Amino acid sequence: MPQRVDVVIIGAGTAGLSALRQVRKHTENFVLINAGPYGTTCARNGCMPSKALIEAANLYAQARTLEALGVRGTANLALDSGAVLSHVRALRDHYVQGVLERTCSLGERNVHGTARILGPHAVEVDGLHYESRVIIIATGSRPVIPEPWRALGDRLLTSDDLFELPALPSRLAVIGLGGVGLELAQALARLGVEVYGFEATGLVGGLTDPVVSERAIALFSREFSLHTHVQAELSAHGDGVQVEAGAQRVEVDKVLVALGRTPNTEALNLEALGLALDDKGLPPFNPETLQVGGLPVFIAGDVNAYRPLLHEAADEGYIAGCNAMCEPHQTFARRTPLMICFSTPNIARAGAPFTAMHTNSVVTGAADFDGQGRALMSGRDHGCLRVYADATSGRLLGAEMCIPDGEHIGHLLAWSIQQCLTLCDLLEMPYYHPTIEEGLRTAVRTTSKQLDTGPSASRGRACDRLPVKGLD
Amino acid sequence: MPQRVDVVIIGAGTAGLSALRQVRKHTENFVLINAGPYGTTCARNGCMPSKALIEAANLYAQARTLEALGVRGTANLALDSGAVLSHVRALRDHYVQGVLERTCSLGERNVHGTARILGPHAVEVDGLHYESRVIIIATGSRPVIPEPWRALGDRLLTSDDLFELPALPSRLAVIGLGGVGLELAQALARLGVEVYGFEATGLVGGLTDPVVSERAIALFSREFSLHTHVQAELSAHGDGVQVEAGAQRVEVDKVLVALGRTPNTEALNLEALGLALDDKGLPPFNPETLQVGGLPVFIAGDVNAYRPLLHEAADEGYIAGCNAMCEPHQTFARRTPLMICFSTPNIARAGAPFTAMHTNSVVTGAADFDGQGRALMSGRDHGCLRVYADATSGRLLGAEMCIPDGEHIGHLLAWSIQQCLTLCDLLEMPYYHPTIEEGLRTAVRTTSKQLDTGPSASRGRACDRLPVKGLD
Repeated sequence: MPQRVDVVIIGAGTAGLSALRQVRKHTENFVLINAGPYGTTCARNGCMPSKALIEAANLYAQARTLEALGVRGTANLALDSGAVLSHVRALRDHYVQGVLERTCSLGERNVHGTARILGPHAVEVDGLHYESRVIIIATGSRPVIPEPWRALGDRLLTSDDLFELPALPSRLAVIGLGGVGLELAQALARLGVEVYGFEATGLVGGLTDPVVSERAIALFSREFSLHTHVQAELSAHGDGVQVEAGAQRVEVDKVLVALGRTPNTEALNLEALGLALDDKGLPPFNPETLQVGGLPVFIAGDVNAYRPLLHEAADEGYIAGCNAMCEPHQTFARRTPLMICFSTPNIARAGAPFTAMHTNSVVTGAADFDGQGRALMSGRDHGCLRVYADATSGRLLGAEMCIPDGEHIGHLLAWSIQQCLTLCDLLEMPYYHPTIEEGLRTAVRTTSKQLDTGPSASRGRACDRLPVKGLD
Repeated sequence: MPQRVDVVIIGAGTAGLSALRQVRKHTENFVLINAGPYGTTCARNGCMPSKALIEAANLYAQARTLEALGVRGTANLALDSGAVLSHVRALRDHYVQGVLERTCSLGERNVHGTARILGPHAVEVDGLHYESRVIIIATGSRPVIPEPWRALGDRLLTSDDLFELPALPSRLAVIGLGGVGLELAQALARLGVEVYGFEATGLVGGLTDPVVSERAIALFSREFSLHTHVQAELSAHGDGVQVEAGAQRVEVDKVLVALGRTPNTEALNLEALGLALDDKGLPPFNPETLQVGGLPVFIAGDVNAYRPLLHEAADEGYIAGCNAMCEPHQTFARRTPLMICFSTPNIARAGAPFTAMHTNSVVTGAADFDGQGRALMSGRDHGCLRVYADATSGRLLGAEMCIPDGEHIGHLLAWSIQQCLTLCDLLEMPYYHPTIEEGLRTAVRTTSKQLDTGPSASRGRACDRLPVKGLD
């Protein structure tokens, strides 16, 4: 006899917990089913431990450069990598604990096990059967590992186990230099690991603009051995691993695989929903309502592979939770895209990516941060920012960057894009001195100078109302 | 026989040079007269050397806290304060050089001397007479020093000579803890100086909100001896100075006077313009055109004491330069006010100050940064942010803060205020995770919960379209 509930939520991660919060505004008759460890990808393996490691790495790297500033004794600084990892885990555990508190009072409504969907209203977990008005799927994702590499056993690391190491390896290969791979490769190099990074494409850190990526590659290559446009092949070699990639052949102790994440769908038995699944095994869904087909089923967070970022997963849980409890379903305008890689310099993308720009109708401008006033103060004057705008209206469409404080400039630009601002509007804003924001102004000015100047152009040309010139 | 020119610009600082750039779009028949050292207050004594000192101080202070993160050898770090100051001067000289290049090609049109106004069209400098269509006054400001203290001679420092010291003093009193005093007091304390700070009011760092200021005072008091609501009295004592302030009596080697700046007007003979001068010795002027009375005279930058900040001085030079060359004069909308003090945590004010808020029609919300997710990563989880909004419309009016990365959050808020955004609009923006911006979102949420809920309230209540809840 199945237990009748209003909602089954599958997955107690960011999206699932965000959905739960909305669901509980309407009912207490729900079940939350979670298969893996509790605590969210973000807190346990993702955002939080990686940022803790990066902060430690950056501080250590900075400390060793202080001789030129008059600090003596920097040559004797040394690292206890086990202590660094303990520090990271202690911080990580603090964040995980905060998440665990959100499920610990649920009692029997919190079920630990692997959920299997039997139909749009039926879910089974370890022999328990639930009949539910609505199902919310939020099972998240896991790191991709190419099947043949699994034989390398514990010589292979992902973000799931990197932070569990007792000490850092001496030599490490990082395969895949997207956001996760790039920021970890740099952090580990700064902590003294001999790092070899490999990327199959020419784009790193989540960038789509080849100009910015090229600049980023040049910068990061100063800190570790970085190879793009190569496919890495791995083989066991003694206690370590041999990596062959193009003309490169190196031996390392461990390999960090950072080839992206794949949705956790296998165990769900999604076929039981009666819908055609795509090549990722995902059913059709509407990103603005998160409804799956026309069913009383919603899919939120990393598992739908739409925008696998924490703040988007939280939004999606909210949307799914709201729509699970009300009809007609509400359509939500999604936020302006924003992606940040917490490398140094930060990488960020705001708005539409470079790859979505049509060269005929878009103008592009850039600012180089070499010698940028504020950045130079702390020897951080590296990187570049590219801005894309509609050639006729001057409306800001997107930006990609690898610059100091890019995480903040990314917000400023994403917020501006969401408000449909033009380059002209941006030039009217205050830019304090001396700040990194002045470098952004340079990029905006450079871009605005390329706007159409024909008689039909209107706002794009009105950029001379109050520009502040020549003070970068 | 006076030399006839189109424009006399008095002062080759930020405002004067910014005006010159506009003037040169129309004429090459001008004279630029400068009395003091060239290179702008910003580059020579202000923004730039102070930020260079602050960066060095922060890096040194951070390096000494790394033991907990697994870095060994931090106890043996030591400072060569002479080397720090040399580093600061080298950077400073680089910035000054950039400014000097802007005047070095002017030849005889660049006159070094003290200008004296003889009338709305007449200026004299060291016996040279100019008859000018327009005069632009941009003589800047200088540090205030109470007259009786001058007897202390070189035991008294201001930002004009602090950076010229061969080494840092052992014990230093800082009198006045506005933006300049506070950031220098903290930086010097971090560089090992025994610092005693004194402030006559209860407000530090340029804040007007007593709640934020109280929090700031508590934070900075951990780093140096900080006394508010006291008038400091100075007297010579051996080779040093005795400071008496309330119940405090300390002996120090040097005193840094940071009591603000006063316009450089004495030598100008402004009486010759035939206008009544105010108690600061300033003639009436329109801040949106910078015209003085109805005369062909403009006053721009720190000398007019309206908004003595670099980016405002640059704007004012632009406005004065444009209006000097065209009639009718253009009225310029000034940018949203933004003030930043580069202390740690940063202090910032955006939009209207707290003192301008009318409690009946304004709601205030706050975010505490103790334990804030991102800030905690690097032990920077201190401070608070207060947000002010119109109680009925929900429109953001202003914010004051003492928080990590406040310089960037200040920009985000100033830009939002300039666009007349509501709290609701702010909650629709993307906030990446984990970032300091999430702390801003907390403050915005807290504030939005206090908005009017009556039937007449409209936008302020519509804040539930897509908030992301509970993920700070």
